[in-house]
Amino acid sequence: MDATKSEAFLRLAATLLLLMTALLVLFDSQTKLIYSSILRKATYKDLNALFVLVLVEFSAASYNLLQLVRCCIASRFMPGLIVWHKNLAWICFLLDQVAVYTVFAANSAALAASFLAVTGSSGFQWMKVCNIYARFCFQIGGALVCGYVASLLMALVSSISAFSLFRLYSSKHFLLLKGK
Amino acid sequence: MDATKSEAFLRLAATLLLLMTALLVLFDSQTKLIYSSILRKATYKDLNALFVLVLVEFSAASYNLLQLVRCCIASRFMPGLIVWHKNLAWICFLLDQVAVYTVFAANSAALAASFLAVTGSSGFQWMKVCNIYARFCFQIGGALVCGYVASLLMALVSSISAFSLFRLYSSKHFLLLKGK
Repeated sequence: MDATKSEAFLRLAATLLLLMTALLVLFDSQTKLIYSSILRKATYKDLNALFVLVLVEFSAASYNLLQLVRCCIASRFMPGLIVWHKNLAWICFLLDQVAVYTVFAANSAALAASFLAVTGSSGFQWMKVCNIYARFCFQIGGALVCGYVASLLMALVSSISAFSLFRLYSSKHFLLLKGK
Repeated sequence: MDATKSEAFLRLAATLLLLMTALLVLFDSQTKLIYSSILRKATYKDLNALFVLVLVEFSAASYNLLQLVRCCIASRFMPGLIVWHKNLAWICFLLDQVAVYTVFAANSAALAASFLAVTGSSGFQWMKVCNIYARFCFQIGGALVCGYVASLLMALVSSISAFSLFRLYSSKHFLLLKGK
């Protein structure tokens, strides 16, 4: 299995998982009767971190889809050409780095905010909300697991794009291309 | 400037910034009189994410210090030998990846939790606390800026370790060492 095929497979899996994460968070809501008189609905908009997560996962899924198209074009029409082109390899490497760190940051931020919903904070007098909205919290938990698996796949993809770029360079001299 | 020197310089800067972040969070506390009768002290222990941040930043600083020692040994006693050794390059690459993602995740989690302290959440009836503990929040903000700069430096270091590893491989065949 060569680098382009592994990359395409990982990108496809990451795209699907990112979409699943975003949709799970987006359509998660639970309505409860609080203090036997007030109806309250919990949605992803109650926590900014979840709102940001939805935006980031949709953007990252679109980005991976575009890269998937590039992979297909590269392997079908110009095998061994586009992938090895130095400037394109640098652009892919940098974009992949930005994408993986952004997705990872958004997931971790959502995890921290959701964790506060589970534990509350006695010091700041923030009450636990997951004993009220249990199903809502379980769904967010599932979404975060998908999100972290997607991050892991994107980290692998970014390693492959680093591999595709750096193997073009000389193993003896710093930042000198091979064959120069 | 060769790869080992850039790496050593970046690791030193990252270590100092990680230590600074951890100490800024660790020694941040503010006492306030609430409801004109209750004395309340805000510390990093009020938010789990800040507690985790302190642990992660200290661990990452120790790790970078160890790697700095390796860099110095490599450049002084065995120039051009240790760094190019394939197995060590793989270990450094994988450890650096784990380290940078962990630090990045801890920073983002702390940012999300601190952001909740600034905005509160009306849906979950969590009150804002940064209008009460303003100085505490400013110091956490400063610590997070240091933490993100450290993450950026560690991302650069992990790119250098990816460079040191992957340039050992053939530019024509997937995962085949040069000279084979």
